[in-house]
Amino acid sequence: MIPDKDFITSKDIPGPTKEEIRCLVMCKSKVSTGDIVVDIGCGTGGLTLEFAKRAKNVYAIDKNSDALDLTLKNLKKHNLEGKVNIVHNDALSALKKIDGLDILMIGGSGGDLEQIIEEGFKKLNDGGKIIVTSILLETPVEAIKILKKFEMNIEVINVAISKGKILERGTIMYSNNPITVITAQK
Amino acid sequence: MIPDKDFITSKDIPGPTKEEIRCLVMCKSKVSTGDIVVDIGCGTGGLTLEFAKRAKNVYAIDKNSDALDLTLKNLKKHNLEGKVNIVHNDALSALKKIDGLDILMIGGSGGDLEQIIEEGFKKLNDGGKIIVTSILLETPVEAIKILKKFEMNIEVINVAISKGKILERGTIMYSNNPITVITAQK
Amino acid sequence: MIPDKDFITSKDIPGPTKEEIRCLVMCKSKVSTGDIVVDIGCGTGGLTLEFAKRAKNVYAIDKNSDALDLTLKNLKKHNLEGKVNIVHNDALSALKKIDGLDILMIGGSGGDLEQIIEEGFKKLNDGGKIIVTSILLETPVEAIKILKKFEMNIEVINVAISKGKILERGTIMYSNNPITVITAQK
Amino acid sequence: MIPDKDFITSKDIPGPTKEEIRCLVMCKSKVSTGDIVVDIGCGTGGLTLEFAKRAKNVYAIDKNSDALDLTLKNLKKHNLEGKVNIVHNDALSALKKIDGLDILMIGGSGGDLEQIIEEGFKKLNDGGKIIVTSILLETPVEAIKILKKFEMNIEVINVAISKGKILERGTIMYSNNPITVITAQK
Repeated sequence: MIPDKDFITSKDIPGPTKEEIRCLVMCKSKVSTGDIVVDIGCGTGGLTLEFAKRAKNVYAIDKNSDALDLTLKNLKKHNLEGKVNIVHNDALSALKKIDGLDILMIGGSGGDLEQIIEEGFKKLNDGGKIIVTSILLETPVEAIKILKKFEMNIEVINVAISKGKILERGTIMYSNNPITVITAQK
Repeated sequence: MIPDKDFITSKDIPGPTKEEIRCLVMCKSKVSTGDIVVDIGCGTGGLTLEFAKRAKNVYAIDKNSDALDLTLKNLKKHNLEGKVNIVHNDALSALKKIDGLDILMIGGSGGDLEQIIEEGFKKLNDGGKIIVTSILLETPVEAIKILKKFEMNIEVINVAISKGKILERGTIMYSNNPITVITAQK
Repeated sequence: MIPDKDFITSKDIPGPTKEEIRCLVMCKSKVSTGDIVVDIGCGTGGLTLEFAKRAKNVYAIDKNSDALDLTLKNLKKHNLEGKVNIVHNDALSALKKIDGLDILMIGGSGGDLEQIIEEGFKKLNDGGKIIVTSILLETPVEAIKILKKFEMNIEVINVAISKGKILERGTIMYSNNPITVITAQK
Repeated sequence: MIPDKDFITSKDIPGPTKEEIRCLVMCKSKVSTGDIVVDIGCGTGGLTLEFAKRAKNVYAIDKNSDALDLTLKNLKKHNLEGKVNIVHNDALSALKKIDGLDILMIGGSGGDLEQIIEEGFKKLNDGGKIIVTSILLETPVEAIKILKKFEMNIEVINVAISKGKILERGTIMYSNNPITVITAQK
């Protein structure tokens, strides 16, 4: 994974998704070199860059043009812009123009989670995956409810990671905020 | 418990111990109205105040006179100074002057954990408790090793609490750093 | 707190609520000797017994008569049955017959969370508290949504506790399942 | 990652290391196709198999021949035995016979952690990694102390994962036991 500190950040844009969560999302997505990935709510570009390193093509979508600028800066910094389409649009409109995707990554939905999943499910290739990550209590509950309707195979994990800071007097553990990661396979 | 926000704090002094940890320490200590409590490394005074509300007498000990000043300010703010002896000394010297204690609370040991526990164990009344809280990885391991020598009944818990911030768009969970609480009964 | 192992249990009845969670619920409820407490979904009686030790009067309510029998057995074992009314009824019907309560404890709602909170809120004395504990993802989200409508002061915590087993070769940490505790004050 | 349920297990042999921990270890190790990996205390073979899928060569070492038999069964089940040398020996003796390794994975040390790390460090190629995973409180503290002597760049994370079980009445979260993962680079 790209170290957290190797991303250009902005105080107004969330992210990057922490290294360990990016690692787990890559594992859960089973992304491979032929995959088309759609990353909704790309923010700083943390997951976009990791998918770009592993997939065929990534659509990075955000309503916030500052987020897209930041994602692009990070892609350029790591020489990964070649595989990524930057899409400045709301998720639903953007999804409608894309066919045949393998991984739908939803890191932020702007309140349209149900329509995004419905549209994404239609476009998802067989065996494709929808992944939802959230720091909120509400989003996982809503996502599970929607994904159940499509009779997808759903996995829910909550990840609480703390990191040690090694000082002279000992190792202090600092917690990252817990993240819920939902993975559903078509 | 006294809400975290009701303590006077200082950026140079650790604490107060978060409300939920104070709550658990009070439960584990089984403190009651006749108890003599020694609180080593009192810092902001979080645990000192809670013990003062429930015990007969509390010795608040710290090597740092600024910590003792802050503890005293917090005691006065909550009208609890009557039951507390403020002791500006290293823990071991202070303990040697105290007899017959029921609860030895160790929140910071300044590297003298073994001698503090040895001396505290000698002074501890039958059925008395030694409690060690730590944000470090090393201190719990050291404490367990020492307490095993005294054939005390040892309980170890690690507590990871996250708190919700309720916003318009949902409830974000923020993690407190994990704390290990060790309780040993004589 | 009463140690977990001191409860009579049944494989068909959930609980008892683990010691540390009972401790935190007691702290969050700020239960005192004059309080009337209603405990909905009492199960094994873990929280019922702790409230009985601290409050004036407790109504233990469950739809499952086996749960009430088990709660009663545990109350008798700890000589606490004097303060507790065992109510075999659904929560909503039971609540309608009770006036002026100080603490509404909801450990299980049988799907009627909204009506239970609405009825409980009406009966709650000023300054009274509604507490919801849950092992589910869905219940906290639903509870927050309902409690927001009453403009109550809401606190949400998620508690993850692991306990050490001290063996010859070292201390293994075993996790309890995470519990969400919601506290709302009228 | 290989799903947890796709490993042959034995009640006497620990493991397999859970999927999410295997995922994080693979990320932290930055294993690549030219790497020589030594897996000490291979147990069920969880990490051995994942390294075998990604590295050039893996030495799976265990003092317990039943563990090695089980690892071999799992390697065969997943057609990965070609890249793995099964070594029935204590870790230290086994390490002495191996030159030029890139990743030293220590999942169990049988009390010889210091000598294993010392010998491993000598054999480790520049940029190589030592990874220690543990369910104990003591092992991470000991590992940090040893690794500091070699002036390695040390990272410590503690991972607490809970998994949802989706039922009719909601999603119950079940905790895996917390694991500490230490990564040190030469």
